[in-house]
Amino acid sequence: MPINIKNFLLSKNKKSKIGDFQDLEHVDGVAISAISANLYKESRDDLVLFYFRDGANYASVYTQSKIISENIKWNLNLKANSIKALLVNAGNANSFTGKLGFKGITQIAEALSKELTIKMSEDEEKKNSVKSGEILFGSTGKIGETFPAEKIKKSLPDLLKKIQYTQNKYLWMKAALGMMTTDLLPKLAMEECTIGNSEIKIYGVAKGSGMIFPNMATTLGYIFTDADLPSGILKKLLKKNIETTFNAISCDGDTSTNDMVSFFATKKAKHPKIKSINDERLREFDKCLHSVLLNLAKRIAADGEGASKFISVKVLNAKTFLDAKKVAFSIANSPLVKTAIAGEDPNWGRVIMAIGKAGADLNLNKLAINFGNIKIIEKGQLFSDYEEVEVAEYMRGEKIDLTVDLNIGNKNFTAYTMDLTKKYVEINADYRS
Amino acid sequence: MPINIKNFLLSKNKKSKIGDFQDLEHVDGVAISAISANLYKESRDDLVLFYFRDGANYASVYTQSKIISENIKWNLNLKANSIKALLVNAGNANSFTGKLGFKGITQIAEALSKELTIKMSEDEEKKNSVKSGEILFGSTGKIGETFPAEKIKKSLPDLLKKIQYTQNKYLWMKAALGMMTTDLLPKLAMEECTIGNSEIKIYGVAKGSGMIFPNMATTLGYIFTDADLPSGILKKLLKKNIETTFNAISCDGDTSTNDMVSFFATKKAKHPKIKSINDERLREFDKCLHSVLLNLAKRIAADGEGASKFISVKVLNAKTFLDAKKVAFSIANSPLVKTAIAGEDPNWGRVIMAIGKAGADLNLNKLAINFGNIKIIEKGQLFSDYEEVEVAEYMRGEKIDLTVDLNIGNKNFTAYTMDLTKKYVEINADYRS
Repeated sequence: MPINIKNFLLSKNKKSKIGDFQDLEHVDGVAISAISANLYKESRDDLVLFYFRDGANYASVYTQSKIISENIKWNLNLKANSIKALLVNAGNANSFTGKLGFKGITQIAEALSKELTIKMSEDEEKKNSVKSGEILFGSTGKIGETFPAEKIKKSLPDLLKKIQYTQNKYLWMKAALGMMTTDLLPKLAMEECTIGNSEIKIYGVAKGSGMIFPNMATTLGYIFTDADLPSGILKKLLKKNIETTFNAISCDGDTSTNDMVSFFATKKAKHPKIKSINDERLREFDKCLHSVLLNLAKRIAADGEGASKFISVKVLNAKTFLDAKKVAFSIANSPLVKTAIAGEDPNWGRVIMAIGKAGADLNLNKLAINFGNIKIIEKGQLFSDYEEVEVAEYMRGEKIDLTVDLNIGNKNFTAYTMDLTKKYVEINADYRS
Repeated sequence: MPINIKNFLLSKNKKSKIGDFQDLEHVDGVAISAISANLYKESRDDLVLFYFRDGANYASVYTQSKIISENIKWNLNLKANSIKALLVNAGNANSFTGKLGFKGITQIAEALSKELTIKMSEDEEKKNSVKSGEILFGSTGKIGETFPAEKIKKSLPDLLKKIQYTQNKYLWMKAALGMMTTDLLPKLAMEECTIGNSEIKIYGVAKGSGMIFPNMATTLGYIFTDADLPSGILKKLLKKNIETTFNAISCDGDTSTNDMVSFFATKKAKHPKIKSINDERLREFDKCLHSVLLNLAKRIAADGEGASKFISVKVLNAKTFLDAKKVAFSIANSPLVKTAIAGEDPNWGRVIMAIGKAGADLNLNKLAINFGNIKIIEKGQLFSDYEEVEVAEYMRGEKIDLTVDLNIGNKNFTAYTMDLTKKYVEINADYRS
């Protein structure tokens, strides 16, 4: 069934395991348009424009893969700290498309900058322009297929015609839906906070849901704030918060060539000037940014391909942060753990296996494992009151929390993932047919 | 259906993707017994004894997991370079079974050494004995369940009564069947070679098929030769050859707490004394050992849980051996590559993704990829004559060879794996039910 906002809002299974959708409203300085450029066989939105008429400071983190898509190459080449537009397409990753793929981006950037410049002069009377070097690109979809630059270029007039300068919850959802590939649910999150006495918004949209493994920026995530922060501070805030949010999720251990998370500040809010990331007045903003990123990241994991359960793996009291992370991901990436959870089997033996193979420092005599609030292992021994039937009951839920306490240090890490189901195999075996 | 030799020989789907079974015959100095100790609900062989009446020099490699099973702990404690018996049980891994699990092994070792000593005096008239420290243990099965030491102890008289001093193909197959867990096929391999002018045999049995990832010794593998080699040379030969055989296979990236590969030399063959691994006269033996190990390793991968296809990933001309290995396993362990192959989808984009995320040195302009003999990528570009329909046809086969030529060095590595199917999820979601 084509993904569009009407179908989606009518559909029944639209509740996320993570909780209800928040209602995103308006962020000053952001304009949105989402249309179909016919990049899919079926009719659906697949081209989304975020337009910052008065510019936005920004920062991005990109995939750590050694093979990167052409749009990521374009983005890495941009010199400006402030941009005017972000264009996201689904259906084609523009990856391994070579010079032709890069040329496609260049042509689209030139056409879009021209048309936006014309639109600007029409809309505002004041003379202003958009340069092609002020446009950022996000792409997601199939790797290695010819990039449909012509189709996208032809759709630009329609895309620009439909730009909306005032957003509401439907428009944000339409944007999130237009970026989806195998996602079942759009990913949206928001927080409101203050800098000084000014109210500030942080809104975010993201898409999953295959090739998800935390090598920095994972999949596509776009965060928008009306705060007036320089790109240097945006960059530091993004880097600081990405490690325990987007970099803490894993669906299948695979890393895309196209991953990106970008953070845009439209500078529309009036607040005291912030010059350093250590400014006390940024504290709340920092927290809220983390919360938006984590909310989106969890939604990506919960909607991982074929997921029937959302899994949190909390590792406590490791000797080092890296050890905590290693153990958490060894469990979160283990096909044997993930299939056991899919089968609602409290097979804690496989958790033991995954802890063992992680290569982290361990003292088996201090190890404790909980499934939810149920003690399984204590001081390296099966808990005396352990009742498999009780854990089996817990495994039937759709949120599974595994806690591993190594009890040999004070470093923690939580990874988020989903179970491995037949549906995952089905989706990925038949992806291109 | 219970696994036993009669059922197995009658069953239809007993042909391996790797090729027919070889007929193992007799290795001097080895005796075998395989019985049921009722470790499974259904009736099947689950306890296998390899008995070396006159002792065998041996070497072992074990799991690299930080959590190891009690039998591996026992084995690591053994001081002797020569042993008298290897006892393998299926159905229970004796892992995370704590002091009780280790005590179980100790009791079995004591009972078995006593009974073997009695048997020896009966059989041979000459006075001889088996010490408990001359017994090696292999265990495979569920983790964290009470080790059934009593059941095994009670079965020892029956096990000893059924010892056969002359082996034939049925006996070797019975032994291989008795070690299986979720394996569908037994794994057997053999080679014959010469040291000096003496004919030497190298026979091997192994079992898979879940938790397979190359962290040294993977799953259970036992190699028997009648050569007269000291344990120091056995150790060097085993270490040297394990890297490109058992350590080159991966089914799901998981590593067991119980992995072991052992190499036994019964010293029955008469040949010139070999004092060094560099002795020219060991060349052929070395090659044959590699061949037996590789043959078994491939059979394990081909019979990986739920496998419908056997996949070889050959990485050529990397800068370093480690880079070649990284790229090979990044592809071989990628759920997205493996599901695409299960779906017979020539989705080379996912191979690109896996190469990119491996973290190895690359020059995209030099990259070449073949599926079988079909060129896909040449000099970093989609091959001009590429025809998807031709590759799609190739993907229908049950042996898939992927070749990635990095063209920037001279180091190679080949990894062996299987596809990721719904059957894998089914097997592992329902393993304990």
